[in-house]
Amino acid sequence: MSDAPAVAVVDAATSGNVGTIARAMKNFGFADLLLVDPPDVGPESEAWGFAGRAREDVLPAAREVAFEDLASGFHTVGFTAVTAENGASHHRWPFRTPDALADSLAGVDADVALVFGRERVGLTNEELDRLDEVCAIPASAEYPVLNLGQAATVALYELRELALDETQLPDPTHDRAPEPAVEGFYDQFETFLDTLHYPAEKRAKTMRLVRRLVGRAHPTEREVTTLRGVVRRATAGLERDGDPADDTDER
Amino acid sequence: MSDAPAVAVVDAATSGNVGTIARAMKNFGFADLLLVDPPDVGPESEAWGFAGRAREDVLPAAREVAFEDLASGFHTVGFTAVTAENGASHHRWPFRTPDALADSLAGVDADVALVFGRERVGLTNEELDRLDEVCAIPASAEYPVLNLGQAATVALYELRELALDETQLPDPTHDRAPEPAVEGFYDQFETFLDTLHYPAEKRAKTMRLVRRLVGRAHPTEREVTTLRGVVRRATAGLERDGDPADDTDER
Repeated sequence: MSDAPAVAVVDAATSGNVGTIARAMKNFGFADLLLVDPPDVGPESEAWGFAGRAREDVLPAAREVAFEDLASGFHTVGFTAVTAENGASHHRWPFRTPDALADSLAGVDADVALVFGRERVGLTNEELDRLDEVCAIPASAEYPVLNLGQAATVALYELRELALDETQLPDPTHDRAPEPAVEGFYDQFETFLDTLHYPAEKRAKTMRLVRRLVGRAHPTEREVTTLRGVVRRATAGLERDGDPADDTDER
Repeated sequence: MSDAPAVAVVDAATSGNVGTIARAMKNFGFADLLLVDPPDVGPESEAWGFAGRAREDVLPAAREVAFEDLASGFHTVGFTAVTAENGASHHRWPFRTPDALADSLAGVDADVALVFGRERVGLTNEELDRLDEVCAIPASAEYPVLNLGQAATVALYELRELALDETQLPDPTHDRAPEPAVEGFYDQFETFLDTLHYPAEKRAKTMRLVRRLVGRAHPTEREVTTLRGVVRRATAGLERDGDPADDTDER
């Protein structure tokens, strides 16, 4: 893996947003925070409060840079909620969505900076003209403008594989029960239906439904073991107490 | 499309986080905000300041609910940064990541609620035990705990297709120039090399590089038209001024 992209914030007004971005950076493995014309982001500022554990490293290591040095020193990707409609103007066209950007950047080894603009108006056309690519987060046609900190959070989440060696999660492919254990459950369940004197004409249909339900849930070993235990206990109880239909009638 | 999932926040302490969640909901097309033991989210609260245009609808329409009614009335998905490591315990296992959850929920028509827990400790095991599925956002092993508002923002972004009819973006597949226009550019460029008396032995290699560079960028029609104009003008200028090598020598 090449170095993770830097994250640049141009002319932010709200210190808290810079803190939010720093926190998202640390959550998703990014380290290099560049600030153009920043607000105060020191220990007394709102940024500190929003940064979580990024106040230990990302935020204090943030560097102030000139926009020109950013534009000339990195392969820059400008984020905007507002794109052109078509190729009549190239200020904001063509654009990539964050997932396409992630795929594209995964294929190159370059010094990349992800550039986020100021609150309300974002990056200007003049600024975007100095940047190398445009990226836009798909959102509601009615209200597509994300808060600055939230836009950066979504972008860094989507680009996390450029920055993270490993996540906190075990392989999300869960430990499915071995097939013989699952089949064992179905056998057990059929015995259970026998003991219940379940109507013969409904037997096949019910077994099919149970197989569909359990089958598409991909049960874990523990789930199957637990279900088998419940059904075994019920079967044994019914056999001990005699015919369940009679039992119900007696009450 | 069935109704978009509801978003539920359990026992949030910080009103601003609820505002952030309301804004993300409006950005990604969600409308139904349910609050269990909420802080003040009225017009005087911090929530209002963070909600952006969600203060017009999502936030004022938020409903206070009891956790039990939430758990019993919806198919509930509990979000957590902390999962079990394996199937030894099922409080937080198995889990889905948000992209897998999006695929899964797209296939069912149900009243779904996405449930987010309190700041710092999230949802308790006892609360998760009452919910139907577990979802975890992949993040840094070193610092996987997202801020509540940021976690909800990422989740709603990833699940936006359950809620959005259309985004603000035109089809991100951009309007590539027709192939004859692109080939026309290559012809023009070859004529340009002629006029430059470009060394014959380098000609094929340079044309190949230009074709690779332009080819993989998928130029728009306007880009190709502009490039052709530039090259045509340069060719005409060179023809008018005579041999460029001689020209250089004269200076």
